[in-house]
Parts: sequence; structure tokens; C-alpha cells
Amino acid sequence: MMRPIVLLTDFGHRDPFVGIMKGVILSLAPKATVLDLSHGIPPGDVEAAALALRQAVPYFPKRSIFAVVVDPGVGSKRRVVWGRSRKHDFLAPDNGVLTWLQKEDEVKQWREVTNTKLFLAPTSSTFHGRDIFSPVAASLANGLSPEKLGPKIPDPVRLAWPEPKRISHGLEGVILSCDHFGNVVTNIPVNQVPPKARIFHRHRDLGPLRTHYAAVPPGRPLAVTGSAGLIEISTRDGDYSVRSRARRGDPVYVRYRA
Amino acid sequence: MMRPIVLLTDFGHRDPFVGIMKGVILSLAPKATVLDLSHGIPPGDVEAAALALRQAVPYFPKRSIFAVVVDPGVGSKRRVVWGRSRKHDFLAPDNGVLTWLQKEDEVKQWREVTNTKLFLAPTSSTFHGRDIFSPVAASLANGLSPEKLGPKIPDPVRLAWPEPKRISHGLEGVILSCDHFGNVVTNIPVNQVPPKARIFHRHRDLGPLRTHYAAVPPGRPLAVTGSAGLIEISTRDGDYSVRSRARRGDPVYVRYRA
Amino acid sequence: MMRPIVLLTDFGHRDPFVGIMKGVILSLAPKATVLDLSHGIPPGDVEAAALALRQAVPYFPKRSIFAVVVDPGVGSKRRVVWGRSRKHDFLAPDNGVLTWLQKEDEVKQWREVTNTKLFLAPTSSTFHGRDIFSPVAASLANGLSPEKLGPKIPDPVRLAWPEPKRISHGLEGVILSCDHFGNVVTNIPVNQVPPKARIFHRHRDLGPLRTHYAAVPPGRPLAVTGSAGLIEISTRDGDYSVRSRARRGDPVYVRYRA
Repeated sequence: MMRPIVLLTDFGHRDPFVGIMKGVILSLAPKATVLDLSHGIPPGDVEAAALALRQAVPYFPKRSIFAVVVDPGVGSKRRVVWGRSRKHDFLAPDNGVLTWLQKEDEVKQWREVTNTKLFLAPTSSTFHGRDIFSPVAASLANGLSPEKLGPKIPDPVRLAWPEPKRISHGLEGVILSCDHFGNVVTNIPVNQVPPKARIFHRHRDLGPLRTHYAAVPPGRPLAVTGSAGLIEISTRDGDYSVRSRARRGDPVYVRYRA
Repeated sequence: MMRPIVLLTDFGHRDPFVGIMKGVILSLAPKATVLDLSHGIPPGDVEAAALALRQAVPYFPKRSIFAVVVDPGVGSKRRVVWGRSRKHDFLAPDNGVLTWLQKEDEVKQWREVTNTKLFLAPTSSTFHGRDIFSPVAASLANGLSPEKLGPKIPDPVRLAWPEPKRISHGLEGVILSCDHFGNVVTNIPVNQVPPKARIFHRHRDLGPLRTHYAAVPPGRPLAVTGSAGLIEISTRDGDYSVRSRARRGDPVYVRYRA
Repeated sequence: MMRPIVLLTDFGHRDPFVGIMKGVILSLAPKATVLDLSHGIPPGDVEAAALALRQAVPYFPKRSIFAVVVDPGVGSKRRVVWGRSRKHDFLAPDNGVLTWLQKEDEVKQWREVTNTKLFLAPTSSTFHGRDIFSPVAASLANGLSPEKLGPKIPDPVRLAWPEPKRISHGLEGVILSCDHFGNVVTNIPVNQVPPKARIFHRHRDLGPLRTHYAAVPPGRPLAVTGSAGLIEISTRDGDYSVRSRARRGDPVYVRYRA
């Protein structure tokens, strides 16, 4: 099988944009396998895309090529970058979207994608998903050597992962996102939570960290070991983010007990 | 071609969850064909998923493997089950979601999926779509014999199909769902409706059962033979469910005439 | 590879309809590649589908088969048509949806699809996506000769492309659609805009036509060369259609300067 091409965009599902990207890819690489990671990233939300990659990348086949088009700077002077980790290749705008990956998925090699011969011509300034990311991904799937993309670069834009802060008797973290079920994802790794610690959000004591929703009665909130190894806050059989009016950026506290 | 794997979930399209499932499947079964039945089931709505399966399963290739992840009990003691009908295999939580299938698609063999060697390790308690359903579906597509999944079980959870009730001079049925176009699906099979019967909803006489929308003028409601063999109620060129404030559970009457 | 089958519908993502179409196609053509152009066309909005085709068709592989199911007349006497352009085949209801294609993608041959042997039996009157478009598309992918579909027709329904009007010192165009990002697409080809012309919407002077969003400061509106060669109106890093309450049908003016 050809290397899969995995798409992550903020294009939504109303317009033909994602379909057009697939058309371009299959025109150039007819046997490519194209997978959708998500097209539901909020428009221009680079951090949401970076978090989705952190959660998802470890589960994709080796040598997958991720084409990430969450690109509020499209048409400006921002660079297009190629990155390579131990297992995968990535194409993305140079806005830090690839820099929240976990240690073992970290991008180690970076190039600027400057070889305009690989782009569709004429190349628009508003739809690089179609004119740059799709044809370049198809070329890589067809076996193009990364040196042909453009020069190595030492200085890709990096977004700092928001480490939780140590505070007196505990940790202060933050809500990173809310999912479709109303579960809230924080930046606090569960392996930093000692056994007897309790989790708090909006002055509510959510009790100790649980391993599964059924640890509390239906309708009750809880803090749970999320599937990405981060503390999540949920309501069993309910929508925590709506009920609690949780928002990205809200502080979340872990308080240690003696 | 490999046996297709068909996904039905309530994961929506915002988060990377569906993409992650596909990543896991293709990591284990690189040549698998993965199809989306729908990811728009309302969160935790087992009946909506059961109805979607009833409508859709007959149209899928023989030997398809359905992975159904509508699973409000994830992480509780609910079982994971494998089922086999005459034509297809199914993986689902043991919550009855496979028991509204039509007679000819009925699941005849059931096993509990207990072989943890087939799961991703570590296995989370919150994302069995990723850690159990995807790798087990991939193993089946790769040719794993169902006996390897776990023991036969005699007692899967069953949801009763809501048969319409016979009432004096007619039938009383119920609205099961409303689709994207505002068409309302009832539980009344069209073959139980005699030629001169009339259909009523909210005291409105919808006339006799029609075979197509164009049987009434634009903007008018009608009862029509739905594509799943059940009475549907629609507004021609309009949204019946919004206009009539139809809700799941509303009674619908068929009244016989002499 | 088999000829790809490209789906464009107004079915949305909540119901199992799109999945059922794919099930039918793969039952009949197990090796078919099925691509989604979009399923987010507003229900029954033939013009929106026609515009999406105009934007997207040039980017799909040669010999793709487009199955377009935006079909408010389903079950009425409207015909089902097959069309062939220089590069592609199309199946659609005979409602004009194929007639906004650009010159080089224009459909040159038309047939009515009348060969009921190709349809699923029984053929519903409410779900031709399942019973007609999917099996016929699969048959074409399997190599069926178009003559087998039905007779040539000289008179498919045509929708006139809304040409911008010449007015004193300029052009009057119209908003055709608003995308997911809040960008507004007009019917004015950028090659009809002289260098010094300025664009106006709702009495606001949007300045000259720009080639990229970064030509104005964040938060500011602009007129930009859209990816389909039409003038688009956007807000840099914002949602123009919400901020300006732009609606389909709004006039947009190009004013020439001496």
C-alpha cells in the first residue's frame, strides 16, 4: 500500500474544499489512501489543531504523511514547512501547529517547502490546501525525496506546550478544549497527579482522579484519566462543558492531600 | 478486496476520534476498506443507532464488519459483543444496538469479546472505539476466527422493537426519528396500512399513504412510503419536523375506513 | 485504479444516507474508489450544488464519475440524466445542477437514464440516491457503456449562469454563497475587473481587488481574488458574512476609475 495521506483542516463540511483536496491528490497519486483526521477544527485555531495532532498522531500507520491546513496566515509571508519525526512526515504552515506533539512523535527535521514546481499553477493566495499542500503530499506519497522540497531550516515557529504550574500544595492547569460530548481536556498529565489528590474546577471539588465514568452516579461530574493521558472533566451521561459553562483557558486545580 | 469495515458512532465531526479509529485500523490492516455509515448519531442515543442499522445494513456488501460505537456505558461493566447474521459481522457494546435489525439481518450468533490480547495496550476506560473496537475489527478483517474473540453468550441485551398497537379501527404508532430534511420516521410498516386508511399526527389528517412527495402540492404535509418500508411524514419541499414541532415519541394514528 | 465515483449531496452527516449510498456502490463495484465532494449542500439548493461543481470539478481525476443528488423533485416526473464532458461523467437529476460548469468542463452529451434494470428493485420514490444514482454510478465504474443507460436527449434543464451586468462606469454582480469561514463568493470573474477599479458592498468601499488576505490589517474587510477565479469578499482573520450580514443575492458593485 502507498503511504497514507492524513488530512487535518478547519474547512468544515459545508463547502467543497476537502473534496477538492482529495481530487488533487488522487489526480497526482491515483492509488493514494487519503484519511480524514478531522475537518472540524475551529477556523484558524492553531492550538486546537496542535492538540488534535498530539492526541491522534501516535495511532496512525508508520510513514503516514499528515497534511495540516489550519492556516490563518495563508497568502502572507508565512512559510510552508515539511517536518519528519521518527515515524511520520508532516506538511503544515509554519505556525507552530506541529510543535505540541508528544516527545516520541517530535519533529526532528524541518525543511521549508519552496519548490514551486510541485505546486499547482497558477497558485492562488487563498487556497494553499488545494494548490500547495495536496500536490506536495501526493508527490511525497509518490516517492519524492524530501530534499527536493526545499532547504533545511533551523527555526520553525514553535508553540510552547502550556505546562501546568506548580503551586503551593498542588498544580494549576488549564482547560485546553471541550469535545463533542462535553468532556473537557486539560493540560495536566495524569502521571503528575498523586493518588490522594483532588481536582477542582470553578470552586467545585470533583474528587480524586477516576479511571472511568461509571465511578460516579449518572449526572454527576468527575475528573477522569483521559484517553490522551491528560486529566479530563466530564459529567457521567451528560455534557459537562454546557452544564458548568467551562471555557478554554479556565484554571483547573489539583490539590494534594497529606 | 478485504472485508469492508463500516463505522457507526456518535463521535461527531469536530474531534479527531473517528480519524484515530481509522488510524488504528489501517495500522493493523493496511489494506482494509473503511466506510463511514454515520458519525452523527446523537451522543449516547442507542435507539437512533439501532434504527440507522435497521435502515442501512441490508445495503452493505456481504461479509462487511460493522463496528458500532454508541456506548454510553463505556468503562462500566457492560460487555463488548460480536454478532453474526446471515450476511454480516458486528462489533458493539452490549446495549441492544444490534437488536432492531430486520428479520433477514438478524444476529444469530453472539460472543462476548474478552480476548484482551486483541486490544490496544494500555486499554483506556473512556475510548474503547480506539482501544477495542478498531483493533478487533482489524483482526477480523485480517481473518481472525471469531472463536478467538471470546465465549459464546446466550443473553445479549435486547431492545424490543416498538411494534405499533392495534386500536379500535386502526393502529397507533410512534415517531422514531426526524431526519436532516425534516422527514419523520414512524414505527409503522407500510405493509400494515390498508389502501383506504388515513394517517393522523397531532389531530391533522394527512390523507392516505402516498408513494412520492409530488403527490401533494409544494408546502403541504403528507404521509409517504419511506425508503425503509416504514411510514414517514414529510412536507413537500419543506421541513415537516420543524413546522409541526414533531418529536420522537409522538403518537401517529392509522385509521381504517370502511 | 477504477474510475473514482465522486458524491455531492445535500444529505448532511446526521443520517445514514451517504453511508447507504457507499454500501450500494461497493456491493456492486467492490474495488470502486468513492470520494466525497460535499454532503453539506443546503437541502434542495440546486444553485449551491451547481456552484460547488463549478469550483471543484476541474480538480478531479480524468474519467471521474460524479453522482450529484440534490434533488428536490425526487419522485416527481423529473428525469435522471447522464452527462459527459471532455474529462468526466455525471449523473444527476435533470434540474440544471450540471449547467454552471466552466466552459472547459461543459457537458456536451446528455442521456436520460431510463434503464430500470440498472436500478435497485424495488425502487423507492424517495431515495433515488440509494436506488438509482448509486447502482448506476457503480455500473459505469464497472465499464457499462453509456448507450445502455437510455436515449440521448437534446433538452436538459439549464440554469443560466448569472452574468454580472454592465452598468455605467462599472459592473453589478451578486453574492452567490457564503462559505464556512464567512468568505462571500460573487459571480464577478476577476478577469473582468480593471486594475484601478474598486469594489463596493452595502455602500462600503472595499478598495481595489487584492490577491491575498494579508494585504489589509487583521479585522479589516477586503475584496480578494477567490480560488475559483471569482471576486470574493472577506474579513482578514474574521467572518465577513456574519459581520456584514451578507446574504446570497446581495448586489456587489465594481466601479471603474479613470
